[in-house]
Amino acid sequence: MTEQEEHKPKTTNISTLGEFGLIDHLTKNIKHFHPNTLMGVGDDAAVVDNGNTLTILTKDLLVEGVHFDMVYTPLKHLGYKSIAVNLSDIYAMNARPRQVMVGLAVSKKYSVEALEELYAGMLLACERYKADMVGGDTTTSHAGLFISITATGEAAKNKVVYRSGAKPGDILFVSGDLGAAYCGQLVLQREKQVYKANPEMQPDISKYAYVVERQLKPEPRADIIDLLEKAGVQPTAMIDISDGLASEVRHICKSSATGATIYEEKIPIDQRMALTAHEFNIDPTTCALSGGEDYELLFCIDQKDYDKVKDIAGIHPIGHITEAGMGANLVTISGQQLKLTSQGWDAFY
Amino acid sequence: MTEQEEHKPKTTNISTLGEFGLIDHLTKNIKHFHPNTLMGVGDDAAVVDNGNTLTILTKDLLVEGVHFDMVYTPLKHLGYKSIAVNLSDIYAMNARPRQVMVGLAVSKKYSVEALEELYAGMLLACERYKADMVGGDTTTSHAGLFISITATGEAAKNKVVYRSGAKPGDILFVSGDLGAAYCGQLVLQREKQVYKANPEMQPDISKYAYVVERQLKPEPRADIIDLLEKAGVQPTAMIDISDGLASEVRHICKSSATGATIYEEKIPIDQRMALTAHEFNIDPTTCALSGGEDYELLFCIDQKDYDKVKDIAGIHPIGHITEAGMGANLVTISGQQLKLTSQGWDAFY
Repeated sequence: MTEQEEHKPKTTNISTLGEFGLIDHLTKNIKHFHPNTLMGVGDDAAVVDNGNTLTILTKDLLVEGVHFDMVYTPLKHLGYKSIAVNLSDIYAMNARPRQVMVGLAVSKKYSVEALEELYAGMLLACERYKADMVGGDTTTSHAGLFISITATGEAAKNKVVYRSGAKPGDILFVSGDLGAAYCGQLVLQREKQVYKANPEMQPDISKYAYVVERQLKPEPRADIIDLLEKAGVQPTAMIDISDGLASEVRHICKSSATGATIYEEKIPIDQRMALTAHEFNIDPTTCALSGGEDYELLFCIDQKDYDKVKDIAGIHPIGHITEAGMGANLVTISGQQLKLTSQGWDAFY
Repeated sequence: MTEQEEHKPKTTNISTLGEFGLIDHLTKNIKHFHPNTLMGVGDDAAVVDNGNTLTILTKDLLVEGVHFDMVYTPLKHLGYKSIAVNLSDIYAMNARPRQVMVGLAVSKKYSVEALEELYAGMLLACERYKADMVGGDTTTSHAGLFISITATGEAAKNKVVYRSGAKPGDILFVSGDLGAAYCGQLVLQREKQVYKANPEMQPDISKYAYVVERQLKPEPRADIIDLLEKAGVQPTAMIDISDGLASEVRHICKSSATGATIYEEKIPIDQRMALTAHEFNIDPTTCALSGGEDYELLFCIDQKDYDKVKDIAGIHPIGHITEAGMGANLVTISGQQLKLTSQGWDAFY
């Protein structure tokens, strides 16, 4: 090693740690000073005991060129989605939305009318899910649009559901159907290439309306939270599906110190998603396990509560929680048992 | 008008509205659904009644190339400042910090070690001002570093101070000294040019240590909030100085429906700032009125409380609140009365 090299500061590429590794690494030195901070980093949202109820806090960024592409994203949809994905985190704590704050960094290419569209979408989501927009910050960016939303929620003290409450024997449920948002993105990206090759061509995406809408305008599952409450059932653990079913099952297992087994045949798949997936030569199960951005809820129900929830429309049992030593596994339609990984599953198990 | 022009959507450049005009325009359609949302857009922070105490919410973005320049900004300082400017908004509501959430969009040029420095600075500010870092979101950016911080605070129900409570006869006070952060930025920008012309040259900025530190590492005035409480005095209105004294005086006048008169000779100026300002051929009063980023507190005190606060070190009476019709004015050292504008003052009054 030359003297030069010796004094060069060490630089590690962010990608070597991965998203979750990086967050774990950066947040490991956090200390809390307030006993009423009940949950910090490590769940869908933070939880603060305000003495009366619990306040839930969450924050999600949407970055142009990373989370959305202005070529095929209508600004009103983008505004709606930016609020929806944050509220999804609030519902995933079994809480209800209260306030949102909006941080925007905007480059010169956006006009006042463009921002009006963005705000119209945000306010539509706020109206639908009853969240009060209470402020934020608007500033300049030199490159594209950055949207930073913070949402607050509220829950009674005994109502918040963490990722960590699952126990062996609990039944794993998922709402809605999975994989469509990812297929919608595949369609939009393909049409973008077609458009770039020939801007005169008007793409016909009506055939893909369902999957495209799932990508552009997801709805947080407020209805599921209400139905479970009405049924008198509180999940033991819950998370929303932003990164894909496989990753979220693993999050619950890690936080709860359990294993889990899910069954491929039980994973809810919409036919319109399956058709699109086949068109792209992708296995629909892959889309469900790894696609992400479905913003459905994955939750665990104590066996004793099964009868209370089994007739609720739109939720599907997909497996059960096991002892930690069992790991997180997928049983395929052909009866093979595969280990779930954050990328989907490990065929070499 | 050709048919083409007729169908072209109207596009208005953002700069035609200005920062405050744009925010007013975009937020004018906001509706609130929750009666416990006491204050939304329009103050340093939002205020929510949680039934027990008040929860304060604020959010500030820092964008590379807009709010900071990586050539002369140490990452640890940047992390510290990103928390400090948000906590300043919490103190400006006469509240105390509780939690912070961190949103980062990071381009590939940043290493893990760079983010460690950034977090070390953020956690140092959290430790100093007792704020719990409770989560957030870390994602990729294609261009530079975007920092979005949300801070929460807490205050007893009768303790929050808005911008809107000033009344004629109140005395206007400001903490610390003003204009130095702006002078620090002038020095750093000049040294950047010197460095670009000759990278071998090591700039000597020790002479400018005070003004440079005021720019790179501002401290929110927690101490002033504590001293006022100890003196048994609650300001009638308060705001932190992020955009410059002139702009903040006008914010208080607008929110409180009053006028104000401030006196140039009373504006607290540090000699080190004045020397630097003269070196750049700028009037020190201009720096104080228009420079911004001082993160000092501007507040109004009822005349009956004057005796209780007059001996508090580090706060300075600079003028008084008048009737709305009087406008916001500056009386210069030479006795001229000038109208304050958001840019500083209007010499053609």
